[in-house]
Amino acid sequence: MLEYAEPVARLIDEFKKLPGIGQKNAQRLAFFILRRPKADVERFAKSLLEVKEKIVFCSVCNNLTDVDPCFYCSSPSRDRSMICVVEEPYNLVAIEKTRSYKGLYHILHGALSPLRRIGPEDLKLANLFPRLKPENNKGVKVREVILATNPTAEGEATAHYIAGLLKPLGVKVTRIAMGMPVGSDLEFVDEVTMDKALANRHEI
Amino acid sequence: MLEYAEPVARLIDEFKKLPGIGQKNAQRLAFFILRRPKADVERFAKSLLEVKEKIVFCSVCNNLTDVDPCFYCSSPSRDRSMICVVEEPYNLVAIEKTRSYKGLYHILHGALSPLRRIGPEDLKLANLFPRLKPENNKGVKVREVILATNPTAEGEATAHYIAGLLKPLGVKVTRIAMGMPVGSDLEFVDEVTMDKALANRHEI
Repeated sequence: MLEYAEPVARLIDEFKKLPGIGQKNAQRLAFFILRRPKADVERFAKSLLEVKEKIVFCSVCNNLTDVDPCFYCSSPSRDRSMICVVEEPYNLVAIEKTRSYKGLYHILHGALSPLRRIGPEDLKLANLFPRLKPENNKGVKVREVILATNPTAEGEATAHYIAGLLKPLGVKVTRIAMGMPVGSDLEFVDEVTMDKALANRHEI
Repeated sequence: MLEYAEPVARLIDEFKKLPGIGQKNAQRLAFFILRRPKADVERFAKSLLEVKEKIVFCSVCNNLTDVDPCFYCSSPSRDRSMICVVEEPYNLVAIEKTRSYKGLYHILHGALSPLRRIGPEDLKLANLFPRLKPENNKGVKVREVILATNPTAEGEATAHYIAGLLKPLGVKVTRIAMGMPVGSDLEFVDEVTMDKALANRHEI
């Protein structure tokens, strides 16, 4: 049965390949596109192609960037003695929003996951170690590596794995704190978070 | 603060324009695109442009199609004496899935909504009336128009409005039934649906 015209069916298929988009949602998006002015759709298509043409991995920290090295790695005002390791480029954005961290980053593009068959060789990890040498870091010695992978089983495993590799190199390795989210309520917090919040308690 | 490289920020913006896609989701989709092979993204962009180039409204029923008149309007095997009026092209697909309706369609591309300032002139309704004349319908007289707009306030208003216009023309006008969805449970049905199910009861 011919339900949709070929080009419409093809567009629905393309939308369905995006993460979290099912059949119904893909249909809705395709029909939205069909109703948009042609110029708007052309701009959308162009911006899809443009990221593939212009965006590369930063050769230093693996950030996605249109200039290499990226904005952070080439900035003269950042503290080069600290490197914060995150899983994904948008994790970097979350940290930048605090406006309190002024060091450099290293982006792994993933986390260890035996279940999904993601091993150390699948992470962008190898280029972290040369960065610790002053001659590869504009003469600055790295004092501390902050492991800011997600507070999940996968993120924890990744943090411990990297810590194990870094500690013999004589660099200070820290892990971001886990505990109660600010503004939350004791009543609704899960037991693992509560456990962490108790274990990481500090004097006031 | 420069958070994302320009092309990435632009793509996030484009995804955000899609219905139901917020900032976080748009970010996630943009990063998904960044990781896809270039050929895949090119195929996606092409299919976006293609629908705008190839898909037109059927001049008879307003269906979205790549051939005019559309598959349904030009089919020799469909019952030309019945026209089913629906709000959206994907409503047609829902009806076709039943495999029980073999007539023609008319697609309004919307429903009346005073709140959203959608009036009769915003619906693709004007070209429904000429279709009732046999000379405009391959010599076949239309016996029945089925109003299959949604069972919502807007769909109901639209059905009543169209019924008011059609009845003086001497054509039989019917409305799809409302009642309990098959496979559902009395316990969970809302009161308005239950009311309809009682009112539309029939002898067995």
